[in-house]
Amino acid sequence: MQAAIYRGRRSMSVDDVPVPAPRYGEVFVEVGFNGICGTDLHEFFAGPIFIPDGDPHPLTDKAMPLVMGHEFSGTIREVGAGVSGWAVGDRVAVEPVYRCGECAPCRAGHYNICQKIGFHGLMSDGGMARYTTVPDYMLHRLPESVSLELGALVEPMSVAYHATTLADLNPGDTALVFGAGPIGIGVFQALRGQGVEDTLVVEPSATRRTAIERLGGRAVDPAAVDVPALVADETQGAMADAAFDAAGVAPAVRTALGSIGSRRPLVAVAIYETPLETPLLELVMHESRVQGSLCYTGADFEAVIALMDEGNYDTTGWVETIALGNVVEEGFEALHRGEKMKVLVDPTR
Amino acid sequence: MQAAIYRGRRSMSVDDVPVPAPRYGEVFVEVGFNGICGTDLHEFFAGPIFIPDGDPHPLTDKAMPLVMGHEFSGTIREVGAGVSGWAVGDRVAVEPVYRCGECAPCRAGHYNICQKIGFHGLMSDGGMARYTTVPDYMLHRLPESVSLELGALVEPMSVAYHATTLADLNPGDTALVFGAGPIGIGVFQALRGQGVEDTLVVEPSATRRTAIERLGGRAVDPAAVDVPALVADETQGAMADAAFDAAGVAPAVRTALGSIGSRRPLVAVAIYETPLETPLLELVMHESRVQGSLCYTGADFEAVIALMDEGNYDTTGWVETIALGNVVEEGFEALHRGEKMKVLVDPTR
Ligand SMILES: [Zn+2]
Ligand SMILES: [Zn+2]
Ligand SMILES: [Zn+2]
Ligand SMILES: [Zn+2]
Repeated sequence: MQAAIYRGRRSMSVDDVPVPAPRYGEVFVEVGFNGICGTDLHEFFAGPIFIPDGDPHPLTDKAMPLVMGHEFSGTIREVGAGVSGWAVGDRVAVEPVYRCGECAPCRAGHYNICQKIGFHGLMSDGGMARYTTVPDYMLHRLPESVSLELGALVEPMSVAYHATTLADLNPGDTALVFGAGPIGIGVFQALRGQGVEDTLVVEPSATRRTAIERLGGRAVDPAAVDVPALVADETQGAMADAAFDAAGVAPAVRTALGSIGSRRPLVAVAIYETPLETPLLELVMHESRVQGSLCYTGADFEAVIALMDEGNYDTTGWVETIALGNVVEEGFEALHRGEKMKVLVDPTR
Repeated sequence: MQAAIYRGRRSMSVDDVPVPAPRYGEVFVEVGFNGICGTDLHEFFAGPIFIPDGDPHPLTDKAMPLVMGHEFSGTIREVGAGVSGWAVGDRVAVEPVYRCGECAPCRAGHYNICQKIGFHGLMSDGGMARYTTVPDYMLHRLPESVSLELGALVEPMSVAYHATTLADLNPGDTALVFGAGPIGIGVFQALRGQGVEDTLVVEPSATRRTAIERLGGRAVDPAAVDVPALVADETQGAMADAAFDAAGVAPAVRTALGSIGSRRPLVAVAIYETPLETPLLELVMHESRVQGSLCYTGADFEAVIALMDEGNYDTTGWVETIALGNVVEEGFEALHRGEKMKVLVDPTR
């Protein structure tokens, strides 16, 4: 079968590799679509970072070269020994997390912060291939209403949804989202799906603001609008009930902390490459907080699939599909140049 | 009566001023002791900052020049009209907060973050005088077991205690305190009083580490000890259940974020003069948080007085008393030179 093999920095090719077979506890999945995310870009242009180079990962026993891809949907084509509750033909989204089950976060149910965490498609052969095999505990059923394209977006949308669960928001509250990349779009759609309709997206790129507007949202340019003043005006001084930083830059953090109300959170759901100048005095003066958010657990996957089933997610204007054979040029390189927002790889093409 | 009058930056003198009379709803207090705090130092050496210069404060209708001093205890010598429940001779600690009662934080009971907040002794004539008058809602009764010296420390100890209420700690948990100034000492004593015995204080100054040790605590020098490694070793990798930043400098914030466990807080109880380089990625990777803490409410005052009544606070080695007449040289200047940690002014001398 054809698969995108990662061999190191800027070294990837689509090669013919053996079809994998499901082991005990695994299912064999025909991949529907597989998304490329910022982590994949970092691995390609600056890695290997998370992908094991040399020593294999303790939970998967695998190192590079390997098949990339951790954001995918598919259809079960074979059920391995020891698997019950799943059948050939079932359509699934895969929650690609290997966890130890033994560390303190795992024991508390927070395996998204497992001390040994591994990802299918970063620490094992993943979804940029016609087929892959995954442990049955990674499977989430897709209803008929959810396409395989949307199914491939469950993973990044769960990253965003998880952030909303840490924001202590209620329907009718007001929220700010900094950054209209895929995670910011996911936060916006997750909030709207949960009844938080009054969300303002702050994004310097006109293209990305247009994407939010095409989804029915409201976006402003922080270079043109005094965001804290706007929020103060629109909330009669109460300020926003929560903010989300999906941008990861100092101006976003500064503006967000100046725009949230007393005792409210800024949820940080970005990968900060360096420490940022952070106005901690804002936290003190309003007893507000910065709360980190990482990945997701199965509950977030189920919540996103339910919201998708109710029609709360739309791919219009921000998601494009390409053929597996063009993954480097039309995928990694195009995303790196900023020409696309989100790319799904179709391994049948 | 003699009173320390603030007239602007580096301009203060002890002058003879009229004795104030209690208005409706007020009591007339003979001051026991009045502490000098970091805010007072800022006003003296870099102010006026909070002290109104020109336009009077909206809640007190007062501007400078005024009598400084917001950390004080005393004895009621006269009860004004409209005051019930208080009698001549009652010993009190004064919670020096004027609040509007109408803003969103006030309505939620969080008047410590009132949008119009004012302090008795910064926005009105305060406690560095033989007498002062205060509204009855500022009064907290001192039991016989609590001296007027300790009573003057209820205010700063309440700042520290309030921070501990935002840390989600339980008896037996482990905590880190960065900075062994008066607030750090207050956090340490408040935690111990609440059964959090396993507290490590991180402080570069040998003098201040000695102060902690004389109080029965444990302190380390961050220049000599790898704090995250020490905490990892002593907690079998679980890391600290909470950290407190009472230092307000970037190395403390960085070390603290590297030393707390997953989903645990760093409570920020410092006045950050500038934005600090903050490793927000640590927050994301462990889903931890930075929580701001400001001042206190009456519940914190009552809790501190109860802990004092049980013998949990000790002034040995860090608190000194001076005469009102020497407030500038032996108080402000000596504190500024770092020769003293905490100074109480005795207005009878
Ligand atoms: Zn991803
Ligand atoms: Zn684990
Ligand atoms: Zn003070
Ligand atoms: Zn208020």
